[in-house]
Amino acid sequence: MDTKWQLLGFSLVLGVTALSLSFVGGMYFQHHDAKRRLQEIIQKDPYAYYVSPKINEVFCFFESQCNADHRMRQIMKYGFPGLDDLRLYSDFVLSYDRRNRVAHWVCEHLQVDNIQSNRSRRGHNPYQADMSVPSTFRSELTDYRRSGFDRGHLAAAGNHHLQQNHCQDTFFLTNIAPQIGQGFNRGAWNNLERYVRHLVHRFGSVYVCTGPLYKPKQRSGGKLGVEYEMIGLNMVAVPTHFFKVIMVESKLHLGKPYMEGYVLPNAPIPDGLPLRSFLCDIREIEHYAGLKFFDGLRRSALFGSNYPSESQVFRDFG
Amino acid sequence: MDTKWQLLGFSLVLGVTALSLSFVGGMYFQHHDAKRRLQEIIQKDPYAYYVSPKINEVFCFFESQCNADHRMRQIMKYGFPGLDDLRLYSDFVLSYDRRNRVAHWVCEHLQVDNIQSNRSRRGHNPYQADMSVPSTFRSELTDYRRSGFDRGHLAAAGNHHLQQNHCQDTFFLTNIAPQIGQGFNRGAWNNLERYVRHLVHRFGSVYVCTGPLYKPKQRSGGKLGVEYEMIGLNMVAVPTHFFKVIMVESKLHLGKPYMEGYVLPNAPIPDGLPLRSFLCDIREIEHYAGLKFFDGLRRSALFGSNYPSESQVFRDFG
Repeated sequence: MDTKWQLLGFSLVLGVTALSLSFVGGMYFQHHDAKRRLQEIIQKDPYAYYVSPKINEVFCFFESQCNADHRMRQIMKYGFPGLDDLRLYSDFVLSYDRRNRVAHWVCEHLQVDNIQSNRSRRGHNPYQADMSVPSTFRSELTDYRRSGFDRGHLAAAGNHHLQQNHCQDTFFLTNIAPQIGQGFNRGAWNNLERYVRHLVHRFGSVYVCTGPLYKPKQRSGGKLGVEYEMIGLNMVAVPTHFFKVIMVESKLHLGKPYMEGYVLPNAPIPDGLPLRSFLCDIREIEHYAGLKFFDGLRRSALFGSNYPSESQVFRDFG
Repeated sequence: MDTKWQLLGFSLVLGVTALSLSFVGGMYFQHHDAKRRLQEIIQKDPYAYYVSPKINEVFCFFESQCNADHRMRQIMKYGFPGLDDLRLYSDFVLSYDRRNRVAHWVCEHLQVDNIQSNRSRRGHNPYQADMSVPSTFRSELTDYRRSGFDRGHLAAAGNHHLQQNHCQDTFFLTNIAPQIGQGFNRGAWNNLERYVRHLVHRFGSVYVCTGPLYKPKQRSGGKLGVEYEMIGLNMVAVPTHFFKVIMVESKLHLGKPYMEGYVLPNAPIPDGLPLRSFLCDIREIEHYAGLKFFDGLRRSALFGSNYPSESQVFRDFG
């Protein structure tokens, strides 16, 4: 009978241990299963991604690594400028202004691979309405036709050459705004886009946020007022200005980023004007646009925006 | 030895069963623990609440009842008109327009309890800037001072008498917009607010969504343009119009809701004009505001908006 009691005691201890392990195992399984499915949602839905730090807290019971690396996470590394109607495309993230039928902002993360010109792969990319936008808020090709305005890119087509669909996505009308053609879209704005690619070649990793402004101006009587045109049957707003906020990551370990903002009037700009004459305090852009750029970075930790010339930027930084 | 084998066999079966139960128990525990913590987040964060149907799918492994009843869920029962800078107050939900420093919309759910007048409890409620808005986007009391405009409520103070803090919250400047005083804020707009409370008394449960419009108008040359003033150092936009979209829930089981929209110009309105002359197609308001109202309801299932008089609404509906 002694063996019997020993056996019973042994199975009891074994049983309790196994039960505990099994309980923890069950928790672990359920935890992992739920986490995996949550991660799938977070990678596709910008709002889920935005609240994910809070959600992930719930899931950091077993480990802290809850952050799979995906494209949205790379592009939005430094935070969302705003949260209105977020849209994830293959190589950029966009916030759409349903009232003006033009984006609020478009964010890109550019590396040398993205901008490597490969014309043969680019093919023919037609402009097209984004059918995922409800029809009441959608801009159509007909709105731009005979309007006198160019269909100007916010995320530049030339920044997205890595894959065919990357470039294609920039031709959705959500990424397009009415721009003056001669002297703007085909002039200064184009030069600004080339300057950005120049920075990518030089420094490797550049974040760009582009969007429209509807800047108020002095009216008669000293009052401030906002005034802008609307084109087409769907009433697409013609912005008074466009901005680009550029952030260059340092190649050095723990090196500080370099940040500058440009504001160009949506008007013919004389050829001779240097780009740097359009430099603008980023806080001013934030105030007019109602956006917050690279919120993850403490602004005081940033130098730049006050370089007298491009060449000096290139000399001092990198 | 026979007893021993029997015992062993018995404990083996028991053990496996217990292990399985324990595993499921562990899953269940972890599931419930995570779910409870998620629900806490969802009740406080409007973005978490917005993505919660997707998140809840992950958690409907054991049961489907994932929806605790809380104030935000009650107010936003029929969906969000838009998703920009969502803010939850004690008795209304608001989306803030950081560019114009005026709300996009304010949603309320009104029942008789909310509007029961109780002046003694109301006390003195001062207007105040909402310090939870970053300073770059915040409107201040000084912006309204000597501007010639009233500080007009979007969610009416008179709709929130159930608790002291409910009424207090309506005095945050996020819920305020520059309105013409004589003939508007103290005239037609006030009448519209009283009409809403009248509906609450009559029908019991009313959803209201209120906000500003910046309506384009014909310019010389036949072009459409948007024009509005901005007041104060922080540049607070003066809307050209204000809208209210009203949805009355039917008291009947499975009864259809009644819905109507009003658009009033931010201008002195002659006393004699009946409210119903400002009735407006809700799709038109949606187009100008860039919002979608009561999205959870199929529009085709709605009657109303086309009653010739208020008395007929009251006769036919309820």
